[in-house]
Amino acid sequence: MQINIESRPAASAAYDTKKKRLVETIDRLYVRDARASLQKMLSKVHPVDLASVLDDLPPAHVVGVFGAIADADEAADVFSQLPPDLRRQVLSETKVEKLAGVLEHVPPDDLADLIGDLPEDQREQLMALLGRESKDEVESLLQYDPDTAGGIMTTDIFSLSHELTVEEAIENIRSHDDVEMVFYLYLTDESGHLSGVVSLRQLLLTAVDTPLHRIMNRRVMKVSTDDDQTAAAMLVDKYRLLAVPVVDEENILVGMITVDDVIDVIEEETTRDILKMAGTNESETLTHSAFKIARIRLPWLLAAFVGGLAATAVIGQFEVILAEVLVLGAFLPVVMGMAGNVGVQSATVAVRGLATGAIDVRDTVPLVLKELRVGLLLGAFYGVILAVYGYLIHESLALGEVVGLTILVNMTGAALLAVLLPMIFQRLKVDPAVATGPFVTTAIDIFGVLNYFVIASWIYDL
Amino acid sequence: MQINIESRPAASAAYDTKKKRLVETIDRLYVRDARASLQKMLSKVHPVDLASVLDDLPPAHVVGVFGAIADADEAADVFSQLPPDLRRQVLSETKVEKLAGVLEHVPPDDLADLIGDLPEDQREQLMALLGRESKDEVESLLQYDPDTAGGIMTTDIFSLSHELTVEEAIENIRSHDDVEMVFYLYLTDESGHLSGVVSLRQLLLTAVDTPLHRIMNRRVMKVSTDDDQTAAAMLVDKYRLLAVPVVDEENILVGMITVDDVIDVIEEETTRDILKMAGTNESETLTHSAFKIARIRLPWLLAAFVGGLAATAVIGQFEVILAEVLVLGAFLPVVMGMAGNVGVQSATVAVRGLATGAIDVRDTVPLVLKELRVGLLLGAFYGVILAVYGYLIHESLALGEVVGLTILVNMTGAALLAVLLPMIFQRLKVDPAVATGPFVTTAIDIFGVLNYFVIASWIYDL
Repeated sequence: MQINIESRPAASAAYDTKKKRLVETIDRLYVRDARASLQKMLSKVHPVDLASVLDDLPPAHVVGVFGAIADADEAADVFSQLPPDLRRQVLSETKVEKLAGVLEHVPPDDLADLIGDLPEDQREQLMALLGRESKDEVESLLQYDPDTAGGIMTTDIFSLSHELTVEEAIENIRSHDDVEMVFYLYLTDESGHLSGVVSLRQLLLTAVDTPLHRIMNRRVMKVSTDDDQTAAAMLVDKYRLLAVPVVDEENILVGMITVDDVIDVIEEETTRDILKMAGTNESETLTHSAFKIARIRLPWLLAAFVGGLAATAVIGQFEVILAEVLVLGAFLPVVMGMAGNVGVQSATVAVRGLATGAIDVRDTVPLVLKELRVGLLLGAFYGVILAVYGYLIHESLALGEVVGLTILVNMTGAALLAVLLPMIFQRLKVDPAVATGPFVTTAIDIFGVLNYFVIASWIYDL
Repeated sequence: MQINIESRPAASAAYDTKKKRLVETIDRLYVRDARASLQKMLSKVHPVDLASVLDDLPPAHVVGVFGAIADADEAADVFSQLPPDLRRQVLSETKVEKLAGVLEHVPPDDLADLIGDLPEDQREQLMALLGRESKDEVESLLQYDPDTAGGIMTTDIFSLSHELTVEEAIENIRSHDDVEMVFYLYLTDESGHLSGVVSLRQLLLTAVDTPLHRIMNRRVMKVSTDDDQTAAAMLVDKYRLLAVPVVDEENILVGMITVDDVIDVIEEETTRDILKMAGTNESETLTHSAFKIARIRLPWLLAAFVGGLAATAVIGQFEVILAEVLVLGAFLPVVMGMAGNVGVQSATVAVRGLATGAIDVRDTVPLVLKELRVGLLLGAFYGVILAVYGYLIHESLALGEVVGLTILVNMTGAALLAVLLPMIFQRLKVDPAVATGPFVTTAIDIFGVLNYFVIASWIYDL
């Protein structure tokens, strides 16, 4: 087993210092061309840490240091952990023979992800480096949509016939010591159909001559290759599993998804949700071109643009009042901004609550009533302050009344709208995350401006 | 092993239908008082599903059905999975003898969480129901801050002396078949100090007379009870572990954190981040009173309020222009809204990137340059449209120039500000999530309004 930089949590100051020192040492050994010492050093560092060390090295030294990793298996582990830009650099600058040896040890699911991201011509080049078996596996994995269970599963799976005895199973595990993390042993019938599961612990606890089908759990929780990756993640999360087997449409066992993959899926889906809430939908800022990013964000902004024009048209209808009471224009930013901000708070609480399952559609009525009261409280607080401010600064009681009352109504209305929209979206099976972005902000803007001028024309009697 | 409602992913339509049918069946058996059939039915449902079934039952039947769960161990599992409000109901309405039996089977960490959430008087009542051993464990767990490794660990941990042989270890595991999920076996020296770890697989792979200290990995990744829960989660996530042991300040093994707890921590921290980005910081909407929620959100809104007043003051300085060109007031919402929206997009991408590690502070310059170009592209696109709109609708070339130019400058500036602020916050070790909330929106508002009127006074030459 390898040594990691630090056995205590990462991201602490101590970790940063240790890592910096390690980067310097490795770089010094490389520059001095002390190959034997460098190899020894590299063999001691945990692959996860080594990948992060490579990321901190001077770019010109990365491929050289990577090439000095003696063990192909370790090199493959490091390679899988590298950030995409370094991976590309290593792919294009490492000698072909060395690369082929490393790639042979990269798990097929990582290989498929890697190859799936490459442009067509590089894809072919890389496939040519793979052995027959890896190539077949990668090709079959590439058929699955990357967001499905098939797209994230590993095919490096160890299964046995349920006809074997406990003793035979243990023998089999002994002779396959290269298979990673077999904490569940999946069992199949004579045609490869998934028939049951036993845990390693059960093997230890049972008399050695017991046939596996006698102790196996037959109702295995499983997913199908075409299931969405989030469905697989939910299953693992909900039932607190360590892995879930993946079957094809004929219930043939083809792979498995482990809990560490599930953590990745959860983070990926959360990022997607957060970006959707902000009105955009891709995260690869550093690899995408500015043009591509602008094109992604453009349609989301259209909602805000059309809404803004609508608000503009509303104000146009009230130009007489604006001409008469010019200061109304000056108060527009605070009157609109406060409503928008309380709206974002309410919408976010609702959308996140729906995503984590903390609330569901049945909670609509109590939630709306709660937000109504929250909006009223906040609106009353800031409304009074703004009314006093308006009255004192501009010496106009009417102005104070208008802005104070508007804030009260706008903030209450915004809180209500912002919690109602996500609940309605959820009921209509539309992703509620879109409701917090430009969509809800715009709705609140139009409502707020209209309300402001209606109140103004009423109080000023214009 | 128990049967779950559905072996395929939850949250599908099929799952909903099956669950609804199960809820109806269970409720019917309960109402008919068919106790034997009800017990048999309940014993077949997976505890996770049973908790969710109880949540869907008529409230008046929940405690009765819960009481019909025959096996105390299963009842404890179900109880741990119940939502907080149901848990409270069960606690207050279940007979004391039955409850004591169930609580004896709830894992100590769940008990501590549960008791920590109760008001002082109920806490005492519940503690009185516990046996000596559970009580001591819960009391020691309650000492830890809930956000630390000590606060989330389970003390239900199985460890052995590293002096034992593989054979003795297997014997020990056999005789402790009630301990959950021992996939790693933690080893201690004669004083209880954590000294190493072996996996169950290693036990299967090694000759039975080998002493454990010969095969154990001595550099165990571990956390201390006082470490932050996120540090523990990062360690498990980064090195793809299934569990991490927890030690006290003297390296005595006191507990462990499993990967399913880590998933909970990641979701909890993400929720915290998202709410902070929206300018609020608590999620328990349904349990908190409206007054408490308003008090939580109030200070976040203060930034927006002060900023709004500043923007109001800025417009006040330009009242002459506003009086002259009244339509400028009408365009305020669209001119401010577009900048605000692109700002939220940019800030969110930056903040989430920093949180997941996809970007770091070293990427500041390329990221800022990228956002500059994105802002320019989006600003040019919407600027031209708004300029044409302004010119056509209001037949004023000057108006078209002002609004078009303002959108271009505002959107570019907003994108820049919105990516710069989180990076600066990160460098100053302030949580960048606060930068996307009212803070950045307000900065953009003031910048946008000022810029609008400066451009207007320049083009109209007023």
